[in-house]
Amino acid sequence: MSDVLIIGTVALDTIETPFGKVKKALGGSATYASFAASFFSKPAIVSIIGKDFPNSYIELMKRRGIGTEGLKIDSKTFHWEGFYEYDMNEAKTRKTELNSLEHFKPNVPEKYKGMKYVFLANIDPEHQLSVLRQMDSPDFVVLDTMNFWINNKKKSLIEAIKKVDVLLLNDGEARQLFGTANLVGAASHALKLGPNAVIIKKGEHGALLFTKNRHFSAPGYPLENIKDPTGCGDCFGGAFIGYLAKTGNISEKNFRKAIVYGSVIASHNAEDFGLNRLKHLTIKDIEKRYREFQDIREF
Amino acid sequence: MSDVLIIGTVALDTIETPFGKVKKALGGSATYASFAASFFSKPAIVSIIGKDFPNSYIELMKRRGIGTEGLKIDSKTFHWEGFYEYDMNEAKTRKTELNSLEHFKPNVPEKYKGMKYVFLANIDPEHQLSVLRQMDSPDFVVLDTMNFWINNKKKSLIEAIKKVDVLLLNDGEARQLFGTANLVGAASHALKLGPNAVIIKKGEHGALLFTKNRHFSAPGYPLENIKDPTGCGDCFGGAFIGYLAKTGNISEKNFRKAIVYGSVIASHNAEDFGLNRLKHLTIKDIEKRYREFQDIREF
Repeated sequence: MSDVLIIGTVALDTIETPFGKVKKALGGSATYASFAASFFSKPAIVSIIGKDFPNSYIELMKRRGIGTEGLKIDSKTFHWEGFYEYDMNEAKTRKTELNSLEHFKPNVPEKYKGMKYVFLANIDPEHQLSVLRQMDSPDFVVLDTMNFWINNKKKSLIEAIKKVDVLLLNDGEARQLFGTANLVGAASHALKLGPNAVIIKKGEHGALLFTKNRHFSAPGYPLENIKDPTGCGDCFGGAFIGYLAKTGNISEKNFRKAIVYGSVIASHNAEDFGLNRLKHLTIKDIEKRYREFQDIREF
Repeated sequence: MSDVLIIGTVALDTIETPFGKVKKALGGSATYASFAASFFSKPAIVSIIGKDFPNSYIELMKRRGIGTEGLKIDSKTFHWEGFYEYDMNEAKTRKTELNSLEHFKPNVPEKYKGMKYVFLANIDPEHQLSVLRQMDSPDFVVLDTMNFWINNKKKSLIEAIKKVDVLLLNDGEARQLFGTANLVGAASHALKLGPNAVIIKKGEHGALLFTKNRHFSAPGYPLENIKDPTGCGDCFGGAFIGYLAKTGNISEKNFRKAIVYGSVIASHNAEDFGLNRLKHLTIKDIEKRYREFQDIREF
């Protein structure tokens, strides 16, 4: 029985980095998030694919216990082609073929509507709002987004942010959305909109958690060899909510642990292309790196 | 009796930020570093000033217990004029008047030559080397630098780095000096040159410590109102070595505590112009913020 509903994209990704290239690899925000969540809980996804979507990818999802009943099939799968330059900090887009995503209307299967944990992964905020409206009464909703929606659908995005418990975004997006260079200022703007917590992802610099009265700073993991950072933010969010659903504890204290688990999965994800690392990741690997995060932080 | 020798600049700074302006305020790397160190130990400085240097500034140093016997007087004081833009990340230089600094030959007073802790704060690496040659046999040497010396005196800088225990630099400088975007890679290059530890300062993102087998990540302090970041890196280094000298413990474990004290003093320093905040800072303020740093990283 699934316990975390995830809406987001399922994509075929063509990615080039200074360390190699993959063509039409399994990707998308819902994919990465659900893989990451699956180490802790039973995620189910709501998304759309095309008739060209390889059956082996569906099988891969099912083997990880990911519920795929919310996966519509229509025309061709969303295809993203991008590359990273030497500093590996930012994905540059070569081509975006929306295909079936263009006319996507998310439909939450009846059996998912009672789920208590919902992750609105990066996708059009109107789809995020639509999914929220279809759910019965989730206990806990996390929203992620990206600069594209801040630029193009800011009004819907703000409306969606008002309805969630936790807002997740990266540092550049936080600065952009709230019009301030200062992340503490951006976070206090965000908290005024409604969420109880704001998590700012800073890539190699770790992540920050802001709640009304407290502040947490999770370290970045010192990765010397980053092969492909695609999906790291989605992994972070998926592992975060997956860990919370597993433990059934949405206290600020548990958010901190969940953020470190998010960082653990995201840092592993960057070690290989696409989902290659996560496919072979074990609970033992995860716990080992969690302990490393503890050591990194100790003083 | 002084216990930490600091070589660096003593300057008059004219600074403009979006939050105000000061003219010919007391500044310079040795000044900030010695003020920061003075909360923990008894620093003494080797530097040069001009005949225009206000006596009140000397008095201010003396009141903080800073040894000024190594302060030469010649012609006019080094004057730096700079500004910060909205993001407060990087100082932009309007004017640099080297004045007496131009023909400076550092001379370590006899009574300082036996000192065990030496901080080669940001200044020409040839001066850093000269001071090292004059010292009897220090136990512990820390070197800080900046992009200007990487661009203009790289050979001398590398020679100096080979002779020190700890290399201190910011993230941009680490990337530049070691020709890699990856900070872990940059740190392992640095460790191969000789230092036992490399500390990478990342401003709002905190600081990283790399030693042969371990890694520590200190969080940044969530400052909403940064008035003037001038001297924060110097404060960090001064407080770091000052705390080590006070405790007489140069283990990796104590480096971590010293880095957090460095971050505490640096974060306070940014709260007001020039040395205005440090002038009134108390041990109680320092210990309070140290405990906040503990809370910020707890999980």
